[in-house]
Amino acid sequence: MPLFRTVRGMRDFLPEEAELMKYIENKTREIAQLYIYGEVITPVVESYELLAAKAGEEIRSRMYTFRDLGGRMVALRPEFTASIARLVATKLRNEPKPLRLFCVGSLYRYDEPQRGRFREFWQSNYELMGSDKPEADAEIIMLTNSLMNATGLKNCVFRVGHIGVLRGILSEENLKEKVQNEVMQLLDKKQYDDALKRVESAGASKKCVIVLQRVMKVKGSGVFETIKRMKRQVRGFERAVSAVRNLYEILELVLESEKKINVVVEAGFARGLEYYTGMVFEVYVPEMDIALCGGGRYDKLIELFGGEPTAAVGIAHGLDRIMLAMQKQKTLTKASKENTVVIIPVKEEMKKEALKISQKLRSANVRVEVEVMGRKVAKALEDADRRRISYAVIVGEKELKDGAVILRDLERREQQKVKIERIVETIEAANQKPKR
Amino acid sequence: MPLFRTVRGMRDFLPEEAELMKYIENKTREIAQLYIYGEVITPVVESYELLAAKAGEEIRSRMYTFRDLGGRMVALRPEFTASIARLVATKLRNEPKPLRLFCVGSLYRYDEPQRGRFREFWQSNYELMGSDKPEADAEIIMLTNSLMNATGLKNCVFRVGHIGVLRGILSEENLKEKVQNEVMQLLDKKQYDDALKRVESAGASKKCVIVLQRVMKVKGSGVFETIKRMKRQVRGFERAVSAVRNLYEILELVLESEKKINVVVEAGFARGLEYYTGMVFEVYVPEMDIALCGGGRYDKLIELFGGEPTAAVGIAHGLDRIMLAMQKQKTLTKASKENTVVIIPVKEEMKKEALKISQKLRSANVRVEVEVMGRKVAKALEDADRRRISYAVIVGEKELKDGAVILRDLERREQQKVKIERIVETIEAANQKPKR
Repeated sequence: MPLFRTVRGMRDFLPEEAELMKYIENKTREIAQLYIYGEVITPVVESYELLAAKAGEEIRSRMYTFRDLGGRMVALRPEFTASIARLVATKLRNEPKPLRLFCVGSLYRYDEPQRGRFREFWQSNYELMGSDKPEADAEIIMLTNSLMNATGLKNCVFRVGHIGVLRGILSEENLKEKVQNEVMQLLDKKQYDDALKRVESAGASKKCVIVLQRVMKVKGSGVFETIKRMKRQVRGFERAVSAVRNLYEILELVLESEKKINVVVEAGFARGLEYYTGMVFEVYVPEMDIALCGGGRYDKLIELFGGEPTAAVGIAHGLDRIMLAMQKQKTLTKASKENTVVIIPVKEEMKKEALKISQKLRSANVRVEVEVMGRKVAKALEDADRRRISYAVIVGEKELKDGAVILRDLERREQQKVKIERIVETIEAANQKPKR
Repeated sequence: MPLFRTVRGMRDFLPEEAELMKYIENKTREIAQLYIYGEVITPVVESYELLAAKAGEEIRSRMYTFRDLGGRMVALRPEFTASIARLVATKLRNEPKPLRLFCVGSLYRYDEPQRGRFREFWQSNYELMGSDKPEADAEIIMLTNSLMNATGLKNCVFRVGHIGVLRGILSEENLKEKVQNEVMQLLDKKQYDDALKRVESAGASKKCVIVLQRVMKVKGSGVFETIKRMKRQVRGFERAVSAVRNLYEILELVLESEKKINVVVEAGFARGLEYYTGMVFEVYVPEMDIALCGGGRYDKLIELFGGEPTAAVGIAHGLDRIMLAMQKQKTLTKASKENTVVIIPVKEEMKKEALKISQKLRSANVRVEVEVMGRKVAKALEDADRRRISYAVIVGEKELKDGAVILRDLERREQQKVKIERIVETIEAANQKPKR
């Protein structure tokens, strides 16, 4: 019965999970507003050419690609980068800098489904375009920390490196861009020995290989002490030295402003994508071995898409992964049925009155459902109780003659007769009282 | 340069439009919460078989259909109905009724692009499953009215009909289901004469054709008077009479609870889709000739997808169309740059302090950006002014010695020296004052 199934790798979110997902999405939007990043919405369907341009073979081969009815080669976006770069290179080309952009939505990759990994997944993206200053890098790290705090995640670790340190050493040895990219990808996969072999085979000096070997081992959570060690190791490689200085400036700004951030500096940390040029970072929680977020500086990307040369730093947050981390950490979000009301007419003739009261309450922002199954009061109450509704308003003939209803507190199991004109304030007052 | 363009029929939302879109989406979610509809998220990619099952030829031929890398025939959802029916027929099969479900997201149809009509578009859907009572139908109309009010749209007209009236007449003449469906589709397209001809050619009695002809003309905004006219016309056709009674009960409940709703009853109003069985309605604004929303009762749909027979009533709201209507009516939403702050360090050495103050303000929920271009104060102020930022906090050496900064009100063009510890309350107080 394939009719009744989701396609392999796709999934449904039932209300409880959907609520958590939307809670996280809202938090990403709140952070965007707090840091004044303008939201953009780009289409799920883009031209294959655009999406494939800088995606890298691994992503390119796993894209959902097809021809539309007009014969155009299109694909479902596997990441936001290309779409944002397209915007900045075209419609937003003449916007004054800095340009702060935010987007959130679903992405598509034909990866092998695994626990917590689906073919449709969600990300929020923040990009700060036009500034090459360390305060821009610091801002992206800080807003990511704000998001982690907003979701209530604990024990987050920020793994921070700088592409300029490694590339600084390699380029001073005149290693070609292509070789450098290969080395970066090996490092990203933590294949350190292979990376060193590649450097050697490309004709780098003995000194360079030794320096690289030592630099790659520099790692620690004492930020300034670790950076000092990095600096010692790269002495003599001018570009690497200046990259270390840049990393120091960024992290100094971050640590001054964020008292509660856990940073691990890692000199050998590289992200696979070719367009990164400076600081790079990822965020982890102890409960999971995949990154929740990843980003960094990529000053060459916009150019690659035909735009003006534009300094840029950005971050992508994996919403599904954040959700999984919240579930693992049992991070509490507000119970969804809190302060809800069901309105039950005792007889058919009270239906009109029941609906009227429902609108009165909703105008006061009270969450209300009306009994629509025509059930007897006892049955409807039982059902409301099971679904953890907070209050029942019972609309009966006798009370109605006095312009009143019965208000039943389903949690405290007590009830009272309340005038209809006082129903809103009575419920609001009850909401203020501590619950059992 | 196809690299730099959206695919035909797709579009980008730049910040101003994206903000409006997200504002509307938020309103749909607020209404779902107010009426206690549980949100579900279903995938954009579903099996072709599922989506094609009940879509009707018109939609089916315009779907984005393709094979995924595993050879599965899939498509991008052209509507939510099939996905929701799949959920109710499977994962939610044993959920107690009533079941109130909400979803919102993007849909895909390869239609000819027109003004306000794109190949990627957005809808919110609300479904109330399990109740065949008029209060369920009333609830769906009422929540739609709540949404229209929440978006600030004016002069909305609810066009309401009842499939049971027309089908009641046709089925008493023993006209086959297939013929009835054809007639409904002709009526949906307002091809009234063709509809009557089809009824005649299918062998209906003279009396039936005359009754139909008269019924179809019954239309009016005096709800109860119009329904009375309908009742007179269908006398003798028992099923039609009972449908008219049902429509009366529904609208009586609505009009008692919603003082400000503009209903036009239209006996000849049919919606094209075959699965509607009872009350149907659409919402219009005078500025546009396409419906903003459409829905009704479809008691047979869940069965068609293999679920238990389930009474159901639902509505889809076109978010793009609501957006267009808001733009046409110049419905105001809150200005996005209200109460925002830019923090400008006078010199490099004040950067740390600038970032620290930014986090202090954000913790108090103030929207803040930091100058990251390294510009001089005058230049940065000019830029902030142009972008309508409300306040600038200037972090200078001299004031900092007193633990203070300059707070400049960019709208009122006045400034004062403020202690850093009092910066939050000073800005909050300024926000309370009336603006020029």
